[in-house]
Amino acid sequence: MGNSFGKLFKITTFGESHGQALGVIIEGCPAGLELDESKIIAEMQRRKPGQSKITTQRKEEDEIQIKSGVFEGKTTGTPIGIVINNSDQKSKDYSHISDKFRPSHADYTYFTKYGIRDYRGGGRSSARETAARVAAGAIAKQLLETKGISIQAFVSQVGDLKLEKHYGELDLAKAEENIIRCPDPETAAQMIDLIDGVRKDRDTIGGVVSCVIKNTPAGIGEPVFDRLHAELGKAMLGINAVKGFEYGSGFEGVKMRGSEHNDAFVQEGDAVKTKTNYSGGIQGGISNGEDIYFNVAFKPVATIMIDQESVNESGEAVTVSGKGRHDPCVVPRAVPIVEAMAALVIVDYILLAKSNKLQDF
Amino acid sequence: MGNSFGKLFKITTFGESHGQALGVIIEGCPAGLELDESKIIAEMQRRKPGQSKITTQRKEEDEIQIKSGVFEGKTTGTPIGIVINNSDQKSKDYSHISDKFRPSHADYTYFTKYGIRDYRGGGRSSARETAARVAAGAIAKQLLETKGISIQAFVSQVGDLKLEKHYGELDLAKAEENIIRCPDPETAAQMIDLIDGVRKDRDTIGGVVSCVIKNTPAGIGEPVFDRLHAELGKAMLGINAVKGFEYGSGFEGVKMRGSEHNDAFVQEGDAVKTKTNYSGGIQGGISNGEDIYFNVAFKPVATIMIDQESVNESGEAVTVSGKGRHDPCVVPRAVPIVEAMAALVIVDYILLAKSNKLQDF
Amino acid sequence: MGNSFGKLFKITTFGESHGQALGVIIEGCPAGLELDESKIIAEMQRRKPGQSKITTQRKEEDEIQIKSGVFEGKTTGTPIGIVINNSDQKSKDYSHISDKFRPSHADYTYFTKYGIRDYRGGGRSSARETAARVAAGAIAKQLLETKGISIQAFVSQVGDLKLEKHYGELDLAKAEENIIRCPDPETAAQMIDLIDGVRKDRDTIGGVVSCVIKNTPAGIGEPVFDRLHAELGKAMLGINAVKGFEYGSGFEGVKMRGSEHNDAFVQEGDAVKTKTNYSGGIQGGISNGEDIYFNVAFKPVATIMIDQESVNESGEAVTVSGKGRHDPCVVPRAVPIVEAMAALVIVDYILLAKSNKLQDF
Amino acid sequence: MGNSFGKLFKITTFGESHGQALGVIIEGCPAGLELDESKIIAEMQRRKPGQSKITTQRKEEDEIQIKSGVFEGKTTGTPIGIVINNSDQKSKDYSHISDKFRPSHADYTYFTKYGIRDYRGGGRSSARETAARVAAGAIAKQLLETKGISIQAFVSQVGDLKLEKHYGELDLAKAEENIIRCPDPETAAQMIDLIDGVRKDRDTIGGVVSCVIKNTPAGIGEPVFDRLHAELGKAMLGINAVKGFEYGSGFEGVKMRGSEHNDAFVQEGDAVKTKTNYSGGIQGGISNGEDIYFNVAFKPVATIMIDQESVNESGEAVTVSGKGRHDPCVVPRAVPIVEAMAALVIVDYILLAKSNKLQDF
Repeated sequence: MGNSFGKLFKITTFGESHGQALGVIIEGCPAGLELDESKIIAEMQRRKPGQSKITTQRKEEDEIQIKSGVFEGKTTGTPIGIVINNSDQKSKDYSHISDKFRPSHADYTYFTKYGIRDYRGGGRSSARETAARVAAGAIAKQLLETKGISIQAFVSQVGDLKLEKHYGELDLAKAEENIIRCPDPETAAQMIDLIDGVRKDRDTIGGVVSCVIKNTPAGIGEPVFDRLHAELGKAMLGINAVKGFEYGSGFEGVKMRGSEHNDAFVQEGDAVKTKTNYSGGIQGGISNGEDIYFNVAFKPVATIMIDQESVNESGEAVTVSGKGRHDPCVVPRAVPIVEAMAALVIVDYILLAKSNKLQDF
Repeated sequence: MGNSFGKLFKITTFGESHGQALGVIIEGCPAGLELDESKIIAEMQRRKPGQSKITTQRKEEDEIQIKSGVFEGKTTGTPIGIVINNSDQKSKDYSHISDKFRPSHADYTYFTKYGIRDYRGGGRSSARETAARVAAGAIAKQLLETKGISIQAFVSQVGDLKLEKHYGELDLAKAEENIIRCPDPETAAQMIDLIDGVRKDRDTIGGVVSCVIKNTPAGIGEPVFDRLHAELGKAMLGINAVKGFEYGSGFEGVKMRGSEHNDAFVQEGDAVKTKTNYSGGIQGGISNGEDIYFNVAFKPVATIMIDQESVNESGEAVTVSGKGRHDPCVVPRAVPIVEAMAALVIVDYILLAKSNKLQDF
Repeated sequence: MGNSFGKLFKITTFGESHGQALGVIIEGCPAGLELDESKIIAEMQRRKPGQSKITTQRKEEDEIQIKSGVFEGKTTGTPIGIVINNSDQKSKDYSHISDKFRPSHADYTYFTKYGIRDYRGGGRSSARETAARVAAGAIAKQLLETKGISIQAFVSQVGDLKLEKHYGELDLAKAEENIIRCPDPETAAQMIDLIDGVRKDRDTIGGVVSCVIKNTPAGIGEPVFDRLHAELGKAMLGINAVKGFEYGSGFEGVKMRGSEHNDAFVQEGDAVKTKTNYSGGIQGGISNGEDIYFNVAFKPVATIMIDQESVNESGEAVTVSGKGRHDPCVVPRAVPIVEAMAALVIVDYILLAKSNKLQDF
Repeated sequence: MGNSFGKLFKITTFGESHGQALGVIIEGCPAGLELDESKIIAEMQRRKPGQSKITTQRKEEDEIQIKSGVFEGKTTGTPIGIVINNSDQKSKDYSHISDKFRPSHADYTYFTKYGIRDYRGGGRSSARETAARVAAGAIAKQLLETKGISIQAFVSQVGDLKLEKHYGELDLAKAEENIIRCPDPETAAQMIDLIDGVRKDRDTIGGVVSCVIKNTPAGIGEPVFDRLHAELGKAMLGINAVKGFEYGSGFEGVKMRGSEHNDAFVQEGDAVKTKTNYSGGIQGGISNGEDIYFNVAFKPVATIMIDQESVNESGEAVTVSGKGRHDPCVVPRAVPIVEAMAALVIVDYILLAKSNKLQDF
């Protein structure tokens, strides 16, 4: 259990860091979508390693192969099977840690759970698995485009360097113009410097990815347990290295009073709008038509180039030495993953809301 | 969809604020548990309204009726049906808002989704529904007790008044000794004063509930999408008024470097332990045996006693006047709800992990 | 697990034969349906015991209480909670079999599975649980009525007495005019005599219920595993005492040649029809717009008034003596249960098919 | 929806007849199983086309590629991804039927549902998809072997030629010694002759596959809706061309009286056994330890070499001419598919029953 996400628009992934291939099956994609493969490739490029000096220098081409579900360029309604071969399978690199538990990795917990461990690069627990999600998310995004719904994530914090401006004051598209993916060029430059310094220290650092979803229609969400933000939260917390999720006013909102926090309704032409949007576009677990926005906290990457104490499978004290090519900070490459998971949630929830009223039955 | 939670230990709830009754069906409870009904009642008491001056003065007895699944005092393995009658059904109280959308409530979104609205006290979107969860969670807790697993939530922040001590420095049991449920008596007194002042201002305020789970065995969790913390996060985000969730180092962790954040493994007798616990007891989505701890952010209650601007179903500008008996701050009553949802997750995930190894098949 | 049925229109039941109450939560009912409670009551009457000399003489009023999900006579889209009290709780009647395993009942298997047994009338394994399904099915039927879809079941065989006419030659509505629910009056009279004789012999006998669903739109079904007929089959096999399911040509169809069995397509005005209907209205797991029809085999009721050999929980040989008031043949009361389960499947699958094409997204 | 089967041991398939590849993701396989790939290949061989004169002469190598979930020869507990390339992609063969609806195929229903149709060999509706199931089932079988559970299917009827002996009187292993897979050599010879004649008539014929599962422990099953036989039934009805399912006494059982049909319990050493087994090893939806046996009815293959009337997408009357290489009777190749689906159900249900008692929690 745990390898599927979504209810009607559902993905199931397989694959580990150094196996033959990763892949994903996408179910529930409506038939008749003209699939633009170049858009999937573009998303894969945003996530892939080796993009810049502040990401890992590992090379993976992340070439997607669509095996089914598309005929004459259009989706057929049947499951879309995608395979991504692992071109960079250097399992010998990992012999030095094959029986050691790397601190704050999943080595120990996988070993405890399964009694066996694929020690090559973290196996299934590697963030490499998210490549499959990005491919699936790119299809979800194409569906959302047909309804004018857009999703834009960006880096809003690295270490204690925080983007202070509200997203409304920024041109979010600018996030793609720099290697850290922060829409404010000045802050971006500082963040890049910070990460570069951390990298030179052979260390890593955490960060925050923020995300804004525009034009979700009102009425999307499945209370009480499957509230729209609860599913978004689960989607984000299911990404490697995530430690927290908040939407709308979030943790800052606890300091506010109700009289300040409540979003007054106003009529604008045919539309009901809110004057403020502390609700983050979701009320009672259902979208209200305003922007949905949220923050996702990523911890510092666990793989550092500094020696660390640990134990091995026999319970002996050992030293773990960092090797290989790793990200000093995960957030720039996490941006497309956050978007992908958000897109999957929104598509799924639009499908779930198709027959809430008798006239739609 | 959305009224069930859990996979093997699964609850499904029904009921709205001012209907005849609430209820819950609990599936997957192992047979042979001697059910202590007084413990369920005790949890219901912790959640029920009218407990103190800082909670709503509404009266609801929240008496539970166990309709099935228990025979001669023991669970039988079949679904446990629980009904909780609504004794305080004063629907006339709500005529003044029957066609108005209360700001930051779910009135507008339910109306948009369903085309119809049960305007009596928020209907299904009312936090009254959580009574059913607390009843179910009380049974989950009894199961966890048989394995020595304990769950303790407490209030760690009200407004900007924050409990500064780490939970390890506190006697968490003391949380139940004051009406705000904060384990530090001094901070508790300040929080109570703060809420009392807010209440007198006819306003409301937000807060944070923290939770610590002790003795979860290592190896519990379902990567990649159903990581233990992702499910805990979804469970918490599914509680009314929640705006954020973080576990372990959380949002603060993003400021740290990997060399500081990584939890070094050490052998202690037969057990593998970690020196620090920034991971929050979960690595790669699977428990490692350390304490699991997390924070849940609650926004200020939307119902305030101050007049507010809004619109009605016809799109006319209206004034919403607060009436009735409402909580000035939701966190003291949210403590047992957080525990209940946490207990449901842990029981469910223990069941899910029963056959991860061939020798357990 | 196992107490829920359906994906989007989903029911979850609780309750055992001699507990306090049975009940059901119905999720996914579109909002705005004017619920006619008298129609639910009418279905309950068709299932309830004590209807005639060929059913059990046990008395159960089967009064339904709708606890939630309906406001001002209309469904609200939130879960509908229904409770049915058990008025006839005579647990003392069952002391004579409390540690004996009744042959071909579920006593032994429940005991093996759960290590505990509610011996009062079979507990959860009693067909009494189907009362909850009939209540839920009655709501599904009201939904189907709004689309002109009708479901009619009837008895087509008792013992080796078989209704020879094809359903198309009969006025199926006549099934409700006699106590066996066979639409052919002559065969009905013979069936009643047969059952009456079996009853006097203190024995029981099996039978077949057939069912016809008219006006299901084409395009409903979820291949490859959740084919429409596979879900109908599961629904029927989930009814107590069912041993077989066949649809369309069924087991007889295996004797045919493809040239005879294939249903030729013909155009009739705007509609594509088939000349014959050996497919039973379903091709490739998806409805084609023709009548859906199927047969359900029910074994003879296990409770007989004749002494039987068995063993008890200690492994001792014992005699089980039949007592109480039981059905000599289950099929007349099974007719509304078959219809209820069929209605639940069709509603659920209509909801599942809402967004198969991009233009419906 | 509909491309997954199972709850804890779950498969999800993708792929269509003439796409690039088929595949399956298998979740929930316990870690540590030494996977014998030759056994998977052997099962693929049993299903593949071109085995004998009474199967299609089409060639497909059905070579499996295990992409993930296995490390150093053992399962790791993570999802097993398997890809099967389609070597025989002759889409040009299908141009003659690209806009015609073949009688009793799924062409019309897929077109209605999705508004688009992959006309190459039936696309997703082709039985070719079952190759993925057989691969997954072969892994389930290896799990069952570790517990001594065996599954043996065989052909028991072709047309009106029926194997009259009870399975207990036969050496079922002999089924694999002839091309029709009937364990009685004499009947097998007659069946082969019958099919050969049908083939020469350019026609097709139906048949029945029977299946026996030995050594399932007592206590496996999930009432009330997910009874073991209901899930087996759904599994079988989800196979292409299946029209009926019956277990134990089945449709014949309806003719019996309770006094004859009831299976008396007897103690044999430590074990509770039944004297007869009309129950088919399942009582109240839960296994009782006796043999589980059932029959599956397959209709005659829809593709015949004889001209047929039909309509095309424009509603014009057309003639469909059979072309290509097709099975005159599906049952010999259906035998491994029936076994595969049965194995998947039994493994899944064993996992589901792991914590029914408190002592196993």
